Amino acid sequence: MTDLAAFRDPASVVVVGASTNPAKWGHWLARGALLGAGRRSVHLVNARGGSVLGAVTVPSLADLPDTPDLAAFAVPAAALPAAVDEALAMGVKGLLVITAGVPRQEEMARKARAAGARLIGPNCLGLYDADTNLALAWGEFQAGSLAIVSQSGQLGSELSGLAAAAGIGVSRFVSVGDQADVVAHEILADLVDHDATGAVAVYLESFGDGERLLAALEALRLAGKPVLLLTIGTSRAAQDAARSHTGALTTSLDVVDAACRAAGALRVNTPAALVNAAQLVVRAPRVRGRRVAIVGDSGGQGALAADIATSAGLDVVAFPQPVRDSLRRHLPAGAAVANPVDLAGAGEQDIANYQRLVAVVTASEAVDAVLLTGYFGCYARDIPAQAGEEVEAARGMCAAAAAAGVPVAVHSMAEGTATITALRAGGAPTYLTVEAAVTAIATAAEIAALPVRGPAAPAGDVTTIAGMPPHGYDAARRLLVGAGVAFPPARLVHEERELAAAVAELRAPYALKAEWIEHKSEHGGVAIGLADLAAVHAAFAGMRDRLGPGGYVLEEMDTRPHAIEMIVGARRDPAFGPVVMVGAGGVEAELRHDSAVDLADLNRERALAMIRRLRCLPLLQGWRGRPAVDIEGLAEVILTVAGVMRACSDLLDLELNPVRVAPGGVVAVDALVTAAAPAKGAASPAGSRPGAGSGRSAAGCR
Amino acid sequence: MTDLAAFRDPASVVVVGASTNPAKWGHWLARGALLGAGRRSVHLVNARGGSVLGAVTVPSLADLPDTPDLAAFAVPAAALPAAVDEALAMGVKGLLVITAGVPRQEEMARKARAAGARLIGPNCLGLYDADTNLALAWGEFQAGSLAIVSQSGQLGSELSGLAAAAGIGVSRFVSVGDQADVVAHEILADLVDHDATGAVAVYLESFGDGERLLAALEALRLAGKPVLLLTIGTSRAAQDAARSHTGALTTSLDVVDAACRAAGALRVNTPAALVNAAQLVVRAPRVRGRRVAIVGDSGGQGALAADIATSAGLDVVAFPQPVRDSLRRHLPAGAAVANPVDLAGAGEQDIANYQRLVAVVTASEAVDAVLLTGYFGCYARDIPAQAGEEVEAARGMCAAAAAAGVPVAVHSMAEGTATITALRAGGAPTYLTVEAAVTAIATAAEIAALPVRGPAAPAGDVTTIAGMPPHGYDAARRLLVGAGVAFPPARLVHEERELAAAVAELRAPYALKAEWIEHKSEHGGVAIGLADLAAVHAAFAGMRDRLGPGGYVLEEMDTRPHAIEMIVGARRDPAFGPVVMVGAGGVEAELRHDSAVDLADLNRERALAMIRRLRCLPLLQGWRGRPAVDIEGLAEVILTVAGVMRACSDLLDLELNPVRVAPGGVVAVDALVTAAAPAKGAASPAGSRPGAGSGRSAAGCR
Repeated sequence: MTDLAAFRDPASVVVVGASTNPAKWGHWLARGALLGAGRRSVHLVNARGGSVLGAVTVPSLADLPDTPDLAAFAVPAAALPAAVDEALAMGVKGLLVITAGVPRQEEMARKARAAGARLIGPNCLGLYDADTNLALAWGEFQAGSLAIVSQSGQLGSELSGLAAAAGIGVSRFVSVGDQADVVAHEILADLVDHDATGAVAVYLESFGDGERLLAALEALRLAGKPVLLLTIGTSRAAQDAARSHTGALTTSLDVVDAACRAAGALRVNTPAALVNAAQLVVRAPRVRGRRVAIVGDSGGQGALAADIATSAGLDVVAFPQPVRDSLRRHLPAGAAVANPVDLAGAGEQDIANYQRLVAVVTASEAVDAVLLTGYFGCYARDIPAQAGEEVEAARGMCAAAAAAGVPVAVHSMAEGTATITALRAGGAPTYLTVEAAVTAIATAAEIAALPVRGPAAPAGDVTTIAGMPPHGYDAARRLLVGAGVAFPPARLVHEERELAAAVAELRAPYALKAEWIEHKSEHGGVAIGLADLAAVHAAFAGMRDRLGPGGYVLEEMDTRPHAIEMIVGARRDPAFGPVVMVGAGGVEAELRHDSAVDLADLNRERALAMIRRLRCLPLLQGWRGRPAVDIEGLAEVILTVAGVMRACSDLLDLELNPVRVAPGGVVAVDALVTAAAPAKGAASPAGSRPGAGSGRSAAGCR
Repeated sequence: MTDLAAFRDPASVVVVGASTNPAKWGHWLARGALLGAGRRSVHLVNARGGSVLGAVTVPSLADLPDTPDLAAFAVPAAALPAAVDEALAMGVKGLLVITAGVPRQEEMARKARAAGARLIGPNCLGLYDADTNLALAWGEFQAGSLAIVSQSGQLGSELSGLAAAAGIGVSRFVSVGDQADVVAHEILADLVDHDATGAVAVYLESFGDGERLLAALEALRLAGKPVLLLTIGTSRAAQDAARSHTGALTTSLDVVDAACRAAGALRVNTPAALVNAAQLVVRAPRVRGRRVAIVGDSGGQGALAADIATSAGLDVVAFPQPVRDSLRRHLPAGAAVANPVDLAGAGEQDIANYQRLVAVVTASEAVDAVLLTGYFGCYARDIPAQAGEEVEAARGMCAAAAAAGVPVAVHSMAEGTATITALRAGGAPTYLTVEAAVTAIATAAEIAALPVRGPAAPAGDVTTIAGMPPHGYDAARRLLVGAGVAFPPARLVHEERELAAAVAELRAPYALKAEWIEHKSEHGGVAIGLADLAAVHAAFAGMRDRLGPGGYVLEEMDTRPHAIEMIVGARRDPAFGPVVMVGAGGVEAELRHDSAVDLADLNRERALAMIRRLRCLPLLQGWRGRPAVDIEGLAEVILTVAGVMRACSDLLDLELNPVRVAPGGVVAVDALVTAAAPAKGAASPAGSRPGAGSGRSAAGCR
């Protein structure tokens, strides 16, 4: 028995605050609890006594005949502490706290754990388990196969309502509320062996212990229960004033996406998108790829579906000739058979033609999923005499899909007909809008394509730089050169008299950089294309006049032809730890907004996958007659930056921009680091999280 | 009486092919026709006689007592010509042909027109008019305010079903079918004075006479009936092999969008998106802008709505302090009031608080639309005793919205409750998903923001270039220089011996271009940065060796600092005529895919608006400390290119890439034209459309 067992199938429950008033939580809890009275003993506590929904109440917990496994509380905040204390004293092992506005929650949670109990909430909407007939929540639930774990009770409730409408229902629902004790990743881990659960919906606003959360998501994935995640961040992220390009290019959502990808979960944008995808995932065979066949009985609807599918990233594949020939046998002359398939009246001739066509395309090796759009489902509504035939065709379609292991998603203008019911029962998800069907297929294809995380590449040996200056280009350069990133040869100079010697050791043309200035080109802190000592002198004099004394880096310019400017960066996320980013670089990086993010524990394959996700990939592969550049070398830089970030626990962020990727190799020509302020008078311990007060200081590397 | 009057409110109709079988079209037509029997005389023709739906049929048109205004045909294709001939001979003025697979349609249409009649179809799904109780179509219609004109009957039917579900219903439905005679723009023009129509949904796959279509759309807009258009093209467009950058950057959808924008209509992507927006447009006050207030009773749902709204381009504006103060008066301490507003239990305290909060935000000058999300609407479902209060709050909310002239769109988890009914009746559109509500607001804001077309700029004087060579850079240069576009000084040379004189007349550095080569840089047809005569000689020798004899343009290089490479192009669309394009240019133009398209009859304001739609606009305005470039000059080039395209009717396309836009002005440094092949032995007449056989030839300019 895990310590959460009391929340799964308690032998007895008590509702503290049961009420006769349907506007009160205590009413809904009592109502739900009583539905499970056949399976467990149910007690109701109401201070004023009397009966609730026909069941006798007792005035207090003390009046119960024995100790219930689970107590649900819907009492005013002021009355809660005493009630919880009483329950713990009795030996109750599960506390479900609906009450909101509870002060000193941490103390209450500590007490519960000390008593060997666990607490869900406070400020939650309750829980539900279809299998064990446990309903302690506001609202109605339809039993089914989607588990819902939500940090917002009402959003969970919305998901539950959508799941009911989609006919997939809910296997388990847990509103985790303020997570004073039990947190979301525990509930998720507890779902791994929950047989009724076919897929999991999660809504989280914060991620707490990212590592344990990812472990729970990975375990669910291994158990064959796809996880779809909702979170917020788009509009909040806009408020984050970002100091570096990397900051602007890696919003919190990008990091969540990277974390989900690493754990085999998928973030979606809306509750409806989540449930639409879940309907496909729990009903139909696995979508193996993005090649979709569209079958319809209207040229217009088919063409529109093809457009929408293409926009959603699906491939409306042109059918091979044998498939076209097979389709043609069931269709009138001139009907479209290339994809989309247009029945062109064949359905009116014989409804079974729908099933025959779907059987042909599902059997084709060229198709990963089928979208049926149009009038199918409406025969039963408009022509009652044909309802039976249509239901038969629906069943045949489902059998063909199951036999081929290819899902069929149905967009139908009809709702609630016997045909729709037969489709759903047979494993074909049905949707009222074509975009819902399309995005469900696209989302399911994305889930199926999620890579396996794989082992992290070794972090590498990063040498601590003793006395490393607080920040700036020179320090970053030295740190990264030490880790293996190539930079052009350079000399650090402070005074005019050092210039001649530096020039003598380097090859023209030169670049001169005020090493402590961020965004140098904007602030006149960089001069490029300096041909000789005279030009270097002039540039130095001007810059020093404007910017004052400091370190100036004189550097050979990277003038290799066909170099493409990229950016590689990393930062530390509070929940998911170090993350790494690659993107189109240079001063226009933010404008391009073309970047990919992954957790820093990645490996070569994942680094290459990041590069492949970039819109500018064709540029790297050789655009319009230009040679391909060193993509492998760029992946190596990503891995190195990730390794530095993992090894140097005090680095807050790190950025190479631009990284010049040419056919012959990769050279970084600017860099920036920010380190956390070290604890006063103490070396920052390796592996510790950076303090809240970030600053610019030496990076502590192991 | 217009010549389409017979299709609006005929005094008498006949259904030819009436049937007792509900699986037959003739059954649905008869059923619908009989519903209008109180308003007009209805006749049914069935070759075998007998009665249909309780009404007596006659065996042929000849047996009718008088001539009906409108005849609807649902007879086999083979029987159709004779039936139509018979109707025309009788003097029927309106023919509605459902029958599909009709041969020699044009002949039938000609006959009808010759007889003073008009024909809708063949191969259509019928028509419906709520006001005049005219239903001659497959399916059920709910009377309402959305007019539907569709080239696909079934897509029209889907729109009609969605409109019924949204509670807005259909004012008029016309499935135009094969458009053998009556075409879509005539039906659209006929809706301008159709009082019951509040908004118009159009589905078109082809656009026919673009000018008349745009005139109809503009007239509808002036009549206050917003038009939402669906079409196809995304996936088809991908199949168009595009020769030029302009071709790849201006898909047919971009042109449709430009045409819609010019006419004040808006293209949307899906039937549901159309109807969701229509529900807002016909119910609620006009959305004046993109600033949205979000009011909800769940922090999670509110935050998610804010994210989705932000993604949809809406501005979740931070409320001014006075608004926050007013909101706070109705809310518990600590409730969020900045936007989103979270009721935080205030709704449970008093449902009227919903109405109070909505009243506060609608009254604010800072808000263009309100999105209410969450539990509202569910009180009536979950707590029957509170249904009355909730309906009252709904009515109060609608009154506040109407008084302020600010729409309130409601996302509610409840469906079909008295509250939802009250909201819709009161002018608040309601949606089952938050994304539906958000995109409806965003779409309505887009409609409201559609610019007024404005007069076209004069096309300018474009001098015909006698003996202009078939194509290539030199010809394009001369044409455009003549029209006023700046190019760098240059000389056309053919032989080595001409180089010295050319160099002497120009300023270094030089560029040498093989003028007849397209995509020169890919094919080694351009050499840049030539410092002196020796370098020019070397480049010429190498190029001539590789590419052979021909015209070579020696040109001064544009080396102005801070120049940004843009592309300006134009092409001729079969329906909408010449269109013009501006975008991020250079060899990476396709990769950037950042372009804006408008019809070539634009003016300065619209040219500037095109530039403002580009993602790279910040680059033009001065990015990260760089100076702003000559945006006005770029607009001038757009207008010139548009003028050339309008003046030279034989030009098929025209492209300047790159156009170097610097702070001091705009210089084009490459250009390409394609002209239609002239009619054999004849000068191509000015103003004529280009022939189907395009080629490379002299451009005929007026």
